Amino acid sequence: MSTQTFTVTGMTCGHCVASVTEEVSELEGVQNVDVDLATGSVTIESTTPLEDDAVRAAVEEAGYQLA
Amino acid sequence: MSTQTFTVTGMTCGHCVASVTEEVSELEGVQNVDVDLATGSVTIESTTPLEDDAVRAAVEEAGYQLA
Repeated sequence: MSTQTFTVTGMTCGHCVASVTEEVSELEGVQNVDVDLATGSVTIESTTPLEDDAVRAAVEEAGYQLA
Repeated sequence: MSTQTFTVTGMTCGHCVASVTEEVSELEGVQNVDVDLATGSVTIESTTPLEDDAVRAAVEEAGYQLA
């Protein structure tokens, strides 16, 4: 199991958290996504380490940016 | 046709706007809902004037408050 943490900017409410969680959860191997709205911290547990670009694409699909 | 304007607090993003729009749109007789995120202004066009309490309930159902 791999745990990675990214910082996402632009999230302002619980809907934003839900959108990011949903998109990141769709990445292959992702087991759990924890988003801290106050800090923008997104912690991802996955069966194998994720490529930064894949995470970036998912976050951007949700409408936000990696810091 | 009746046009009424309310101020809603707590909306921070487009998802919030969508939630308020959806709930208010479900009120009987509502024809159009326009939400200005920056000001919190919600303008409602309806076939007959809406009761303030009905609008308040819809806004609260969405998770926000009337000012």
